[in-house]
Amino acid sequence: MIIVLRSGATEDQIQHIIEKAEKLGLSANISRGVERTVIGLIGPEDVLRVTPLEVFPGVEQVIPVLAPYRLVSREFKKEDSVIKITDDVSIGGKKLHVMAGPCSIEGGDELEAIAKEVKAAGATILRGGAFKPRTSPYDFQGMGEEGLKILQDVGKKYGLATITEVMDPRDVELVCKYADILQIGARNMQNFNLLKEVGKVKTPVMLKRGISATYKEWLMSAEYILANGNFDVMFCERGIRTYETMTRNTLDINAVAIIKYLSHLPIIVDPSHGTGKWGLVSSGARAGIAAGCDGLQIEVHDRPEEAFSDGAQSLLPVNFTKLMDETRKIAQAVDREL
Amino acid sequence: MIIVLRSGATEDQIQHIIEKAEKLGLSANISRGVERTVIGLIGPEDVLRVTPLEVFPGVEQVIPVLAPYRLVSREFKKEDSVIKITDDVSIGGKKLHVMAGPCSIEGGDELEAIAKEVKAAGATILRGGAFKPRTSPYDFQGMGEEGLKILQDVGKKYGLATITEVMDPRDVELVCKYADILQIGARNMQNFNLLKEVGKVKTPVMLKRGISATYKEWLMSAEYILANGNFDVMFCERGIRTYETMTRNTLDINAVAIIKYLSHLPIIVDPSHGTGKWGLVSSGARAGIAAGCDGLQIEVHDRPEEAFSDGAQSLLPVNFTKLMDETRKIAQAVDREL
Amino acid sequence: MIIVLRSGATEDQIQHIIEKAEKLGLSANISRGVERTVIGLIGPEDVLRVTPLEVFPGVEQVIPVLAPYRLVSREFKKEDSVIKITDDVSIGGKKLHVMAGPCSIEGGDELEAIAKEVKAAGATILRGGAFKPRTSPYDFQGMGEEGLKILQDVGKKYGLATITEVMDPRDVELVCKYADILQIGARNMQNFNLLKEVGKVKTPVMLKRGISATYKEWLMSAEYILANGNFDVMFCERGIRTYETMTRNTLDINAVAIIKYLSHLPIIVDPSHGTGKWGLVSSGARAGIAAGCDGLQIEVHDRPEEAFSDGAQSLLPVNFTKLMDETRKIAQAVDREL
Amino acid sequence: MIIVLRSGATEDQIQHIIEKAEKLGLSANISRGVERTVIGLIGPEDVLRVTPLEVFPGVEQVIPVLAPYRLVSREFKKEDSVIKITDDVSIGGKKLHVMAGPCSIEGGDELEAIAKEVKAAGATILRGGAFKPRTSPYDFQGMGEEGLKILQDVGKKYGLATITEVMDPRDVELVCKYADILQIGARNMQNFNLLKEVGKVKTPVMLKRGISATYKEWLMSAEYILANGNFDVMFCERGIRTYETMTRNTLDINAVAIIKYLSHLPIIVDPSHGTGKWGLVSSGARAGIAAGCDGLQIEVHDRPEEAFSDGAQSLLPVNFTKLMDETRKIAQAVDREL
Repeated sequence: MIIVLRSGATEDQIQHIIEKAEKLGLSANISRGVERTVIGLIGPEDVLRVTPLEVFPGVEQVIPVLAPYRLVSREFKKEDSVIKITDDVSIGGKKLHVMAGPCSIEGGDELEAIAKEVKAAGATILRGGAFKPRTSPYDFQGMGEEGLKILQDVGKKYGLATITEVMDPRDVELVCKYADILQIGARNMQNFNLLKEVGKVKTPVMLKRGISATYKEWLMSAEYILANGNFDVMFCERGIRTYETMTRNTLDINAVAIIKYLSHLPIIVDPSHGTGKWGLVSSGARAGIAAGCDGLQIEVHDRPEEAFSDGAQSLLPVNFTKLMDETRKIAQAVDREL
Repeated sequence: MIIVLRSGATEDQIQHIIEKAEKLGLSANISRGVERTVIGLIGPEDVLRVTPLEVFPGVEQVIPVLAPYRLVSREFKKEDSVIKITDDVSIGGKKLHVMAGPCSIEGGDELEAIAKEVKAAGATILRGGAFKPRTSPYDFQGMGEEGLKILQDVGKKYGLATITEVMDPRDVELVCKYADILQIGARNMQNFNLLKEVGKVKTPVMLKRGISATYKEWLMSAEYILANGNFDVMFCERGIRTYETMTRNTLDINAVAIIKYLSHLPIIVDPSHGTGKWGLVSSGARAGIAAGCDGLQIEVHDRPEEAFSDGAQSLLPVNFTKLMDETRKIAQAVDREL
Repeated sequence: MIIVLRSGATEDQIQHIIEKAEKLGLSANISRGVERTVIGLIGPEDVLRVTPLEVFPGVEQVIPVLAPYRLVSREFKKEDSVIKITDDVSIGGKKLHVMAGPCSIEGGDELEAIAKEVKAAGATILRGGAFKPRTSPYDFQGMGEEGLKILQDVGKKYGLATITEVMDPRDVELVCKYADILQIGARNMQNFNLLKEVGKVKTPVMLKRGISATYKEWLMSAEYILANGNFDVMFCERGIRTYETMTRNTLDINAVAIIKYLSHLPIIVDPSHGTGKWGLVSSGARAGIAAGCDGLQIEVHDRPEEAFSDGAQSLLPVNFTKLMDETRKIAQAVDREL
Repeated sequence: MIIVLRSGATEDQIQHIIEKAEKLGLSANISRGVERTVIGLIGPEDVLRVTPLEVFPGVEQVIPVLAPYRLVSREFKKEDSVIKITDDVSIGGKKLHVMAGPCSIEGGDELEAIAKEVKAAGATILRGGAFKPRTSPYDFQGMGEEGLKILQDVGKKYGLATITEVMDPRDVELVCKYADILQIGARNMQNFNLLKEVGKVKTPVMLKRGISATYKEWLMSAEYILANGNFDVMFCERGIRTYETMTRNTLDINAVAIIKYLSHLPIIVDPSHGTGKWGLVSSGARAGIAAGCDGLQIEVHDRPEEAFSDGAQSLLPVNFTKLMDETRKIAQAVDREL
């Protein structure tokens, strides 16, 4: 932790800070410049993070030296983590995986029709929401447990692993019964009690980035899950909110390389939410793979005109197949397999 | 709902849209310009909002005419809502109310020392967190029920109403036992299951704006609470996330006037989070009152150097008293009382 | 300047940095923690700012200690600067000044009608654009020198000082002939050649904040003007671009207090652009004064339906008069005069 | 143009709008819903864009139907524009081009050393700044005409076309004498007088996206250049400003596909500014090509430790060669050549 003092900070103020630091078990290194004095505090930074040094008299700025996340960091674990989902599906290795399916589960026949198509195109994981976080209380809120059962059945029938969102700490146990991956949605990235609950189970978790979350906050949310015992976590970049409104979100492609650099955990790209327009999804998918991500999540619907949600960003199966063909070539170009 | 067609949209495509609309009980008004055809759909817009007209062939743009929120809107209720908290405290009328206290409840004596000071300065509501949404899993997470009891006791002793955050649907009942106002924090503004739960109780709710929530999303989140039966809701502007990092958040002062225009519900301003620096809090408080808000929420701590959280933005009691004196004058200038 | 090294940085890498620093005339203070070594470089930071220390082997992070601006800072000059515009108008003292008038100068009679009204309501400075930065090449681009003459004539006739925008380095001399204050628009805040030109003249300058400029960048742009010799500079907060689109911009009320804290120069608030909707202008004006600004800039038009630009955010004279009455009360509440 | 009226708008108000529209040569189509009346105005939208219909009594919202840009749009020209730079270099066809070189021109020998390397790695265009828009007045401002001469000489010697920034309308003629492409920097994207000047010459122009420019504003700025006679314009996505600060900017990869969809002009991606960290540049370059851009701009420096500017985001020649090899594979995967 580095403490920059105001110009004109007094010797008493400096001593007051040093005493506090020493009481916390840290040692201080003082550097007196012409315009500013700077104090470097040496020792475990955690005890300092919760001490509001900014309010000490004479302090201008407090600068942390260490990252606040530990278990998710590359420093903690150098090699890439590979997360085993099922016997057939492991995420984070050479093989890329594509999660595809409708935004909402709308019924058994409906899901089967889509599952069949995405399987044929090369997807290995079936997505579909049973609990839907909808902006409006008057919109379709999902089929609940009935939807989960459908997802499990259809996944088994077509040999697809499954992923679905859990949005309430009370539902974690239930969702674990049916799904192979728990999805934490963007709106719940900082629902800390939910993070604690999914940290206590053994089902792998995909943590979507909050709509305006920094990389650091995102890593800290993953840290919650690992710190509670579940190390099978992957990130999902799904676009962030910016001033641009022609797209639903701005797909932050930088996230792929930077998360790979800072963390050992895999990262998935979701160009459906990252663009919000089906005509842009394929371009975003290719970019994600080229940037180095470990998989994709894509919304597919065979009758988008009648989708219960997110129709505008859902691909028709024919376009999904085209996307898979295009991204397969990109995967080879970056020495991965799809 | 207005549908703008692409240039070159065919007659078949137009008919397809009209048929769909008529099936949903709407009538269509077609306006053929030189470059674009525009279809106006007349009737209940709700059935259309969930129909992804963007994916219909030939459609360029879909523009809603009506706001998606109803119960919270000025059109639903013309006059300002006044929310009764206790016999002494009602929010939304001529009298402004100030909620003050520490970020976290840290103990009985600690809270009492602060309560005494803020009461003397003119605050009518005591704030303090027992459940804390912390970015890091390693930081202090709050005293839980023990903290709630302390809050209730100290509030009673000093004749202050109380407000505290609830962040888990499982805790709503518990918090209602102790607090006069339930606070929904910024990170939970779109925790829809939590919104539903606080919609089912009778305790008034203060809904903080999400860190990157639009006015519309914020209004929709309030709509969740009203739609579930609880009409005693107030908003709280606490700053939004922008590119500027010298302040913790950017206090969106426009929010006050625009929420007052769109909704009948009261709005509180929180300049502590809205600035993140104690030296700026008073300026933000004055601006909030001048803009027309119904009250303030201010973090106060008598030993900010030892605060468990948010010390950097907490005012010393002496500065809080000064803030109250300054804002009292502003209140008079806008014909309110403090 | 503080250099944080990567974990595992070698002794050679540390020496390489120290040598470089010493060659530049700085001395180094080394602080070896368990996880990170930190080097503090003591001496004139300017020579370091242009040396990309981030690329030195072993460096993780480079943190400047000093602000890069000097002449505009409070450290350079403790007391508030008061800028003399005319014999009657000085900005930055106890008396607040309001700049009012149409977005564009549209003709002599048109401007006179408005000037008469704003003068009667209490404005002391007449605004009006002769050179207009328009998003579209097909929109009205301003009356040019003819407009400047009109502005000067009408200003003189009604005893109003004048302000108008200059957007081209080639026009600075011309605009100085006619106007009392040069306005640098938001789009030109980092048009550095223009800043240099207005730095070489004696006419006071009002520097609007760029639509996504940080406080630091804004201060640095003012530094350009002062560094070229013109110390009569004032800032103008006119709203920033955020994700919120219901308002044209987000008026950043925090800017007032923080610029006052960091700089000795005056700051004006422009709630017309800061909101983009005439119904919100008065609320923003009151907030600006309450926060502590030194004046306002307000768009007024007597026939907004026929304004050549910005009609939607222009006040009718009757509403402007009301705004002046309301803000006068706020001014008194913060011990200023209007 | 679509006019949505407030609930309760009177018949007089409706007539007032219709009269205004008819006076402007438009016809009106009225659609009366239960809650809102909507007026569609049919005819040339340009005359309406400058009429502030928002201020007409009874109007709630004004929604444009047509895009305000014409010459740059796909509707104006269906097929991709290919811009001839030199006999060897044309941008927008199957062959991708890479512009590489230092941020600033620092001297003849220095530029030659870099030119030789980037040429060997496959770059076809040499970049280097002679006029530098620097945030601080105290930083290096570029070598001016001397730098331009060096750029031209080195370009000729190594058979590389050249690109350099022009930031002042007074310098356009001068820069045209030396460079093959004029670069308009992000800070000048809305320097409209500069846009007009580069619109009057025959040298191709690369228009960088403003740091917070919407797609629409960016297209409108290009429209300025085309409307003044110069059709040889290409876009350059270089990252936008968001709340994320770990990267210098957020590379908006969606921009590639959406600009391609809306416009016939080529688009270049600049991952050096788009990330701000050399370790992320290659990932951004690959993503740009995969998304479908027409070329790259990359900062390369052989001694980044001594670069006059932007050292932290400059690649060493060895890393640039690696980037070229990687992107060449991606180019093939999307059926392009590099």
